[in-house]
Amino acid sequence: MYTAALDIGGTKTIAAIVDETGKILTMKKFPTNVADSQAHLEYCAQVMETLFRQMDVDPARMPGLGVSLPGIVDYEQGALIYAPYAKWENVPVAAYLKERLKVKTVCCENDVNACAVGELKFGLGKQYTDFVWMTVSTGVGGAVVMDSKLVRGAQGFAGELGHLKVEYDHPVQCSCGQFGCMEAQASGTALNRMVREHAQKSEEFARALSGLPMDGAGCAALAESGNEEARQIFRELGSYLGRGISYCANILNPQAVIIGGGVSASLDWMQPGIQTAIQTNTFPKLQDFVVTRTPLGYEAALLGAAALTL
Amino acid sequence: MYTAALDIGGTKTIAAIVDETGKILTMKKFPTNVADSQAHLEYCAQVMETLFRQMDVDPARMPGLGVSLPGIVDYEQGALIYAPYAKWENVPVAAYLKERLKVKTVCCENDVNACAVGELKFGLGKQYTDFVWMTVSTGVGGAVVMDSKLVRGAQGFAGELGHLKVEYDHPVQCSCGQFGCMEAQASGTALNRMVREHAQKSEEFARALSGLPMDGAGCAALAESGNEEARQIFRELGSYLGRGISYCANILNPQAVIIGGGVSASLDWMQPGIQTAIQTNTFPKLQDFVVTRTPLGYEAALLGAAALTL
Repeated sequence: MYTAALDIGGTKTIAAIVDETGKILTMKKFPTNVADSQAHLEYCAQVMETLFRQMDVDPARMPGLGVSLPGIVDYEQGALIYAPYAKWENVPVAAYLKERLKVKTVCCENDVNACAVGELKFGLGKQYTDFVWMTVSTGVGGAVVMDSKLVRGAQGFAGELGHLKVEYDHPVQCSCGQFGCMEAQASGTALNRMVREHAQKSEEFARALSGLPMDGAGCAALAESGNEEARQIFRELGSYLGRGISYCANILNPQAVIIGGGVSASLDWMQPGIQTAIQTNTFPKLQDFVVTRTPLGYEAALLGAAALTL
Repeated sequence: MYTAALDIGGTKTIAAIVDETGKILTMKKFPTNVADSQAHLEYCAQVMETLFRQMDVDPARMPGLGVSLPGIVDYEQGALIYAPYAKWENVPVAAYLKERLKVKTVCCENDVNACAVGELKFGLGKQYTDFVWMTVSTGVGGAVVMDSKLVRGAQGFAGELGHLKVEYDHPVQCSCGQFGCMEAQASGTALNRMVREHAQKSEEFARALSGLPMDGAGCAALAESGNEEARQIFRELGSYLGRGISYCANILNPQAVIIGGGVSASLDWMQPGIQTAIQTNTFPKLQDFVVTRTPLGYEAALLGAAALTL
């Protein structure tokens, strides 16, 4: 069985046809037309039609189309309420694509929830029924899965892990306006800032970084090569993530915290900080869970979109 | 329809017969025999038999007996695994009482989960499907209800709200060994400590307290009479509760946080601190929830026990 999936991100979009085991049969990546949501949806539809022809599938006979969207989503209506980066508002994604592509159904979900659903269906969800998903990227997002079901909360906003407060004493201001949020202390953006700040304080570190980008990627390369200051930065980042993870563990008693997003590539360097924070901040009998990287990689949200229809 | 309920607490036990609307038809309160769990269970059975006779009900025709227990409970086996105060271990509560009383079923739950189930069935659960229950008493306990169901987590330990870290900078050590837990900063025990400490620092406060107990009750009486220092202590306590509540709100997006336990009697004095902490620490779009006192009062766990069988 084949199903259709769209992962519309803040900068890139992926269209794909995926089978029921989560195998991506064909996919096409293209830039997101941030300026014009309507034109972008129409272009997505055209790309999907190309993929349908290429795979020789009749869209009307597929289970449907799943769409991952970058922002606040009304999943019942299949509408994008608000996308912070693109500034899109009230886009009736499902209604437009269902009519345009003649598919049985179009299911929409925000990107982090989509990742969790993808994990549930095609990733570590085969192993874990109770887990927390964390995207650590430009920002920090999250989703909660209990008893193999997404926890949505009263208005569908559950899983706002990025705004858990992890630093009260010397907090960094977050883009949300508050202070000490995990997103302000432990995102990719925070990592880049820490690298710049540390390079200003430590000549040795600045010298070691020369020729490398002065950001998280450069710091990861240095950590890999054995640089202790770079590793210390990742430990510090990890200790903030560990505080937020501890809140989740105390409240939810999960089996796993699964981390995706670009910064998760450096999870090994963050683990010492994460684990120390967990030992210090999670109630002892609740410490029996794993913190691990998603096996789904960059395609987690796309696979989650596919899973929405299956 | 009548059902039977037992609330076995660390110091007191209540046995009752309750109808399907949560009305307590008859009840008997007696001290918990901490020294001997087996003798206490036998005494509970004798009291229940008295109540059955008094109400002229046949236990075999009731839905069953619900039991609230003070500690870690294996609700599937109906066993008390460990009770910290009483030091009871591996007590097969359900097996013993089912055989002894000839009831159809015996359902066991830990006291905080029982409170949440009681709230769900007989209290604000009629209004809210997604809420967090917090007991603020000698310690701080919690339970999570999402979609009108108790969230248990991987090992049944979800809702350990008392050990959320709410103070990293000048933390008080908790009985769990860690530092800065909500239980160490915002429980009844913490309140008593704050009152004693404040009385040592402020002669005026100590004078105002004279004739009153030097504890939370005395502080509440002072706050009631308009004493600003007493009110400030409750605001501080509230601000720690508000931090923990904010973690719950960011992770779970609840409609309500429902507070029970002895300290909840002073909720009005804590609300300014709670609300300020929520505004500072909860992601703006998740601030639309209420913090309120349970309407079930001291009988929340007993009613929850009754609800287990209905």
